[in-house]
Amino acid sequence: MTQPTALPPAYAALEALMREAGLLRAVCGTLEWDRYAWLPSAASASRAEQLALLQRLVADRVGAPETAELIRQADGEALSPAQRLNLREIRRDHALATAVPADLAAALVRASNRCERAWREARDRRDFDAVAPALAEVVALTRESAVVQAGALGLDLAYDALLERWEPGLRQPALTRLVAGVADLARPLVAAVASRRAQVAAAPGPVDVARQRAFMPRFLAAIGYTPDLGLAAESAQPCFSDDTPDDVRITVRYDVNRPLAALRGALHECGHALYERQVPASWRYQPLGRPRSGGLQESQALIWEVHVGGTQAFLDWLAPKLSEAWGQQVTAAALAPDWRFADLSRDRHDSGELGYLLHLGLRCELEPLLLEGGLAVDDLPDAWAEAAARWLGTRPAADARGVLADIHWYRGLFGYFPSYLSGAAAAAQLMDAARIALPSLDADLCNGRFEPLVDWLDSTVHSWGSQLSTEELITRATGHPPGIQALARHLQRRHIDEVQS
Amino acid sequence: MTQPTALPPAYAALEALMREAGLLRAVCGTLEWDRYAWLPSAASASRAEQLALLQRLVADRVGAPETAELIRQADGEALSPAQRLNLREIRRDHALATAVPADLAAALVRASNRCERAWREARDRRDFDAVAPALAEVVALTRESAVVQAGALGLDLAYDALLERWEPGLRQPALTRLVAGVADLARPLVAAVASRRAQVAAAPGPVDVARQRAFMPRFLAAIGYTPDLGLAAESAQPCFSDDTPDDVRITVRYDVNRPLAALRGALHECGHALYERQVPASWRYQPLGRPRSGGLQESQALIWEVHVGGTQAFLDWLAPKLSEAWGQQVTAAALAPDWRFADLSRDRHDSGELGYLLHLGLRCELEPLLLEGGLAVDDLPDAWAEAAARWLGTRPAADARGVLADIHWYRGLFGYFPSYLSGAAAAAQLMDAARIALPSLDADLCNGRFEPLVDWLDSTVHSWGSQLSTEELITRATGHPPGIQALARHLQRRHIDEVQS
Repeated sequence: MTQPTALPPAYAALEALMREAGLLRAVCGTLEWDRYAWLPSAASASRAEQLALLQRLVADRVGAPETAELIRQADGEALSPAQRLNLREIRRDHALATAVPADLAAALVRASNRCERAWREARDRRDFDAVAPALAEVVALTRESAVVQAGALGLDLAYDALLERWEPGLRQPALTRLVAGVADLARPLVAAVASRRAQVAAAPGPVDVARQRAFMPRFLAAIGYTPDLGLAAESAQPCFSDDTPDDVRITVRYDVNRPLAALRGALHECGHALYERQVPASWRYQPLGRPRSGGLQESQALIWEVHVGGTQAFLDWLAPKLSEAWGQQVTAAALAPDWRFADLSRDRHDSGELGYLLHLGLRCELEPLLLEGGLAVDDLPDAWAEAAARWLGTRPAADARGVLADIHWYRGLFGYFPSYLSGAAAAAQLMDAARIALPSLDADLCNGRFEPLVDWLDSTVHSWGSQLSTEELITRATGHPPGIQALARHLQRRHIDEVQS
Repeated sequence: MTQPTALPPAYAALEALMREAGLLRAVCGTLEWDRYAWLPSAASASRAEQLALLQRLVADRVGAPETAELIRQADGEALSPAQRLNLREIRRDHALATAVPADLAAALVRASNRCERAWREARDRRDFDAVAPALAEVVALTRESAVVQAGALGLDLAYDALLERWEPGLRQPALTRLVAGVADLARPLVAAVASRRAQVAAAPGPVDVARQRAFMPRFLAAIGYTPDLGLAAESAQPCFSDDTPDDVRITVRYDVNRPLAALRGALHECGHALYERQVPASWRYQPLGRPRSGGLQESQALIWEVHVGGTQAFLDWLAPKLSEAWGQQVTAAALAPDWRFADLSRDRHDSGELGYLLHLGLRCELEPLLLEGGLAVDDLPDAWAEAAARWLGTRPAADARGVLADIHWYRGLFGYFPSYLSGAAAAAQLMDAARIALPSLDADLCNGRFEPLVDWLDSTVHSWGSQLSTEELITRATGHPPGIQALARHLQRRHIDEVQS
């Protein structure tokens, strides 16, 4: 990268092509963020057309026959170790982009667009039947694509091809074990959380949105998300901009009655932003420079939202600042239950750490059944209600809070929820290792010194880009292969031990 | 457009290609606005690379040999009158995109990029000599390009090719007459304005920026720039987003000591936005759907900033609203001199209506000399100082306020200032016609009824897109070919008659 003229010719041509794809992906990332943050609804059709065109231009570069030929030629060239790793990632992108025949891929995009539109109406009318035929079509086409992809990628199971896109290396048997483990850990805690919420003092609030807004830049800057890094706008649902390492934007949402929700959400998006930002500069806009996986991406968000945000030390730092910013007496003791034990009856985003795990477990249990044909789309609401009763202890109040709550399946995003779940396990495991590597972590958090943790995450996760597999990265960072033990210890500590002490 | 399947094949292929170019231009427009509004400076190199890539993708579509072949084929197809006009505009775009050989065009882009960087440093250090060699290179390459372009476009003079890009149909002799006319009209008023400023009551202010900010959405909505149209962000220099008909964004700038400046600037950008927005929906993202010219685009901004904003009627409407919003007594009488007679010693943006004309006249006088070789780059500062003394009655305080003030020449934008000047003449002429067509205009402005004027501008200017030439459009709208008489009457009225009455 530093000596472009010295690059072997085929590899150099590939890098130039991938840089174009990376720049176009960054444009998409900024425009997607802008769609959340600013776009007037009348412009959404034009924006969708712009994004579709840009994505086609990315695919043209990543999936072109010419790219295949360059990959073949570059394979025989004398490459540095990093260049060879980049070539590996280019090959992976190319394989994913070309595995599915163009007409099948186009049919799936069309069906997903139709289904997403139908879903918006169905959700507003709380009428699953109105979207069921469109979803059945998406599921059937996704299944057909997954079979072809699995063949092209040399995977045993069709569902593995869907997992591979968001969490490379994750396979269905490991997911099944993960789901079962989360069920064993999290479900018994539901009753404990409910009683805890009843015992604790009332959560702080309401807090005027103007006051919340005024505090946010100071809060974000303390974590390390300074204005030179990007921009925190507002949107109905918090988000961060993908693939934009030089300019990572986030959005936050303010609710006058739930002032902690904005801070939790901001910490979450901030965790994503710091990962996107810190990929190695020399590999920016190359496949090797991207965050490794959706799961690791989620782990970084959860480390800040859950594992930092929920600690006594962090809340001890935060409480006096909030007292001043909110103009009311706020104690760490009053913050803790609201931060840690959100109301489980809310939806996935808002139900706190435990609710998040339970919601994901439920989705990760049903998704493979839906994809492998064991569960018909028409039977999904009943299956959902039954699973929700087991996972959440309640039947969903309405489809809009249950089977219709998340856009993912209706947009054809299968294999996505599992990466969130593996991210939750990775967050706990990485945080355990961080505590060992940084013995003064709690004292640092208590004093608002967040750099040591940011630096540790940079050096063990962010700066690796996509050089290591998720398994290699976690093993190297923590001394153990990815597992659920750290998550178990964390849940025990936070939901049982700390509350009793 | 309504029956795409019925389109003749070559024309249909052209329209599809132009729609892609139009969508990519819109992406550039949004990213350019974002660059002003939000972009952290550390991300500016990446953004520049993104924009350069997108512009290349536009040029690939507009200038491709395949496009030339489709134009030839479409010419023989059975087209509707509007399709034939669109084909005319496509041919024009293609001719402009391909007139200059690729290596010369690339050399000019490289030289302009170098020169722009050198200019930023030179401006900050007030050192013209530091940028002179880079500017000389830009001028030489621009001249070389203009000669080739004039040949390809069948124009007599090289400089006409530069004018053609921003104001199609404007030729150097007409520009020379325009500059001479403005000199005759505007220069004698300099002393009058200076004495007027001394006579009048002090301008309102200072006004807390938070108060100014809070009033802006109401102000913009009254004019018709509602949130569904776009977004008003803030930036160091006000701007609007080009080529984005579905989502026209603007920026405003607040200065605690000059509270009217933000309102004047917002009205200016709002005028641009309403033009961009109101091109006919059926021709969106096609060349025929674009605003006709840079000059007409500027005329729409000046109609609102100068011809509406400076009237007694408008200020009568505005004053009580400002009293409430600013929390201080504001009278129309106190607003008028500040709105109409800004301090001429300020730079082009800030020197008010008269200063704007004088600054443009000075630039339009020097620019052809520079391009045709009569004036060497090394002699430019002296020529500027001499011209500034004649035009503005003062020698510029420093290069940063004079020859180094505007980015245009240093970025290779020649032919641009003349379009501003013809826009100023067009604004006065259109406004004269609007007053005849709308006899109750002043009463409407006084009552905050802006729709009749917006509607008149839509029907006589905006909705025509690029169907008519500028000359045809102005003749049709006003009953007279483009001229300077209306501007003369306006200056006499505003700077002599109204003040004496």
